[in-house]
Amino acid sequence: MGENWNDYVIATYRLGGGGDWTKKAETIALGMTVGSWPGLSAARQESLQRHAGRVVTVDAGLIRIAYPLANLTPDLPSLLTATFGKLSMDGKIRLVDLTLPPTFAAAFPGPKLGVEAVRERLGVHDRPLLMSIFKSCVGLTLAELTEGFFQQALGGVDLIKDDEIFFNDTDAPFERRLEACLQAAERARRETGQIVLYAINLTGPVHRLPEKARRAVQLGANALLINVLPYGFDLLHRLAEDSEITVPLVAHPALAGALYPSDDYGIAAPLLLGTLMRLAGADLVLFPSPYGGMALELSEALDLAERLRDKGGLPHRRSFPVPSAGIHPGLVPHMMDDFSLDVVVNAGGGIHGHPGGAAAGGRAFRAAIAASVACIPLEEAAMGSSDLRAALDQWGSGKARIPKEFSA
Amino acid sequence: MGENWNDYVIATYRLGGGGDWTKKAETIALGMTVGSWPGLSAARQESLQRHAGRVVTVDAGLIRIAYPLANLTPDLPSLLTATFGKLSMDGKIRLVDLTLPPTFAAAFPGPKLGVEAVRERLGVHDRPLLMSIFKSCVGLTLAELTEGFFQQALGGVDLIKDDEIFFNDTDAPFERRLEACLQAAERARRETGQIVLYAINLTGPVHRLPEKARRAVQLGANALLINVLPYGFDLLHRLAEDSEITVPLVAHPALAGALYPSDDYGIAAPLLLGTLMRLAGADLVLFPSPYGGMALELSEALDLAERLRDKGGLPHRRSFPVPSAGIHPGLVPHMMDDFSLDVVVNAGGGIHGHPGGAAAGGRAFRAAIAASVACIPLEEAAMGSSDLRAALDQWGSGKARIPKEFSA
Repeated sequence: MGENWNDYVIATYRLGGGGDWTKKAETIALGMTVGSWPGLSAARQESLQRHAGRVVTVDAGLIRIAYPLANLTPDLPSLLTATFGKLSMDGKIRLVDLTLPPTFAAAFPGPKLGVEAVRERLGVHDRPLLMSIFKSCVGLTLAELTEGFFQQALGGVDLIKDDEIFFNDTDAPFERRLEACLQAAERARRETGQIVLYAINLTGPVHRLPEKARRAVQLGANALLINVLPYGFDLLHRLAEDSEITVPLVAHPALAGALYPSDDYGIAAPLLLGTLMRLAGADLVLFPSPYGGMALELSEALDLAERLRDKGGLPHRRSFPVPSAGIHPGLVPHMMDDFSLDVVVNAGGGIHGHPGGAAAGGRAFRAAIAASVACIPLEEAAMGSSDLRAALDQWGSGKARIPKEFSA
Repeated sequence: MGENWNDYVIATYRLGGGGDWTKKAETIALGMTVGSWPGLSAARQESLQRHAGRVVTVDAGLIRIAYPLANLTPDLPSLLTATFGKLSMDGKIRLVDLTLPPTFAAAFPGPKLGVEAVRERLGVHDRPLLMSIFKSCVGLTLAELTEGFFQQALGGVDLIKDDEIFFNDTDAPFERRLEACLQAAERARRETGQIVLYAINLTGPVHRLPEKARRAVQLGANALLINVLPYGFDLLHRLAEDSEITVPLVAHPALAGALYPSDDYGIAAPLLLGTLMRLAGADLVLFPSPYGGMALELSEALDLAERLRDKGGLPHRRSFPVPSAGIHPGLVPHMMDDFSLDVVVNAGGGIHGHPGGAAAGGRAFRAAIAASVACIPLEEAAMGSSDLRAALDQWGSGKARIPKEFSA
């Protein structure tokens, strides 16, 4: 077989503790695939060879194991169970990366639209997108929600998303809410000329969600929000590959912090929220910004974003990174320095907490984005925008935090 | 509202770091529900009150927050997103426990059979059950798998489970494998008089799995193995509540180690693999035994098992705990001391690694179980069972480990 790994997925792990790393790597390679060789006949060993895991490299506690495609199906339950299922419970071990051969990666859907087609739908090609988050959804009447939507839309945002905790929606049921918010979007468009997409939270029994999503699209839905980890990556995959679901899928990272932050355990954030979200088909991926109270390290956030947008890494369309939490207009130039143009500026408190209200909050962001694209300092731009001026007065122009209770 | 928490789910967290715990708790209670109060009118505050989270207790870094049922739907994506979705990414924080009011808990399916009805199906009432794991499934022909099944069944095991990594089954496709193994079970039953259930690994697109499970049951399947975390808890829930799926659901803990082992992050094992698995409807739950190479602390394993079987904690049927990895016949009396009768003795290497083969391995376990139930020391029982004698000679009778590569 030589050193051709085209028929293998390669997993990189960081091991804690100590001991004989090479022996440990060999035990993992066999234990996670065919079991163990001792006691097997030569004939059986021969026939199992193409199903056995193999050690690729051992570099102290950083080891790489190759898993044969012959054991896998192209979906994330298979991939995660094969590479980290039982192994995750085997002491200090962290799944750092997965490398898929191109043919295998190509069997995953990836984003159905991706950066370019989402821009096409919005008619926005030359600036970061702006997304707004309902400050809260629970407990509002349908009329209150609709009015909140309208105010956000008036500010010139490109997308508005439901709160991810919005499950019990008896006061504003899914289909009625969808209809009312789409009408509010249209009402705002007549004033602003601006298209706004509504990422409505897709909830319910997991096996019914593709059907619910198809129905939503028939009713005019133009984006869907998905709590990918609580429902499992495979739901996102099945929504992404469904040709009747023709709208961008917005992945929320809820629960990701149960998996990525430890140094010793779990799954690294750039793999979990970068590579795997893109493979499974997210068009936009929210993740903790490197600025707010719920921060990823900047280097990790940039790695994550790169995996979403990289043209070399995966054969799929590119996903929009959406660094979230703690975003206010003063941060926009820093965000563009860090993430460049293909990024979504996503704000909750930074829009709703604006002294002029949500519409003014949106306008302040749009002014900050326009200025940053034109390389105009915000202080200068604020001379032409009282909304931006008010935002800068409120939150400053540095990487200062805004209060945590506003973050989302 | 006083101190009546009947309309709330109470989440217990352990916080790391330092600071003002009370302030932090209050920020969480609001931030995870309605957002923040400042800036809201008195009328709006009033109307949102019944949707707001509330601080129950603050005991240094151990805090308890009550989440209104008014925000929730009775399913685990809702419950996990509401209590730990965004919050999981908020620094050092670990979800230690969730307490559901009885009415809300009752809306979850729980086990469709539970301990008593599984025992009924097997006709086994007075001893721990014995489960055997295919040593490996991948790469075997259907004939090899069937013969392996038959040998395990001959040893007198009550259940046989597929390897959880068995996704790519082109050499032994699901329906043909089911049919062949059921025939092997029947063939063994004619020799031993013993019923054996086959927990076949349920894999495929998540939204199709309830349909696939129903079809499997129509074809005679008598148990199903589910990688609950890779697919998401809600799949288990939907299988459990489906009245056409009439067979025990066996939950594999694959990937759980990405969530529970850290002291600072993630979800505690007794909650994750105990309470939540039972709520969602697992009849049997595998988890790392306190004996093998992939060990849980004994106290944690006992807490987990108690949550599965406790008659007081949840209104549901009781689930079988299946402490797994590192189990050999010499451990059986220790297991019964620790877990009592309502437990499943689950072995892979401890059956297949027996010098007399898998059938002898099963017989050795059955002899050890019979002796332990009768309070006969294994050394004495081994005088009447050469298979048990050989097992004790191989692995001893203490809590010594068996080699990791045999564990499952």
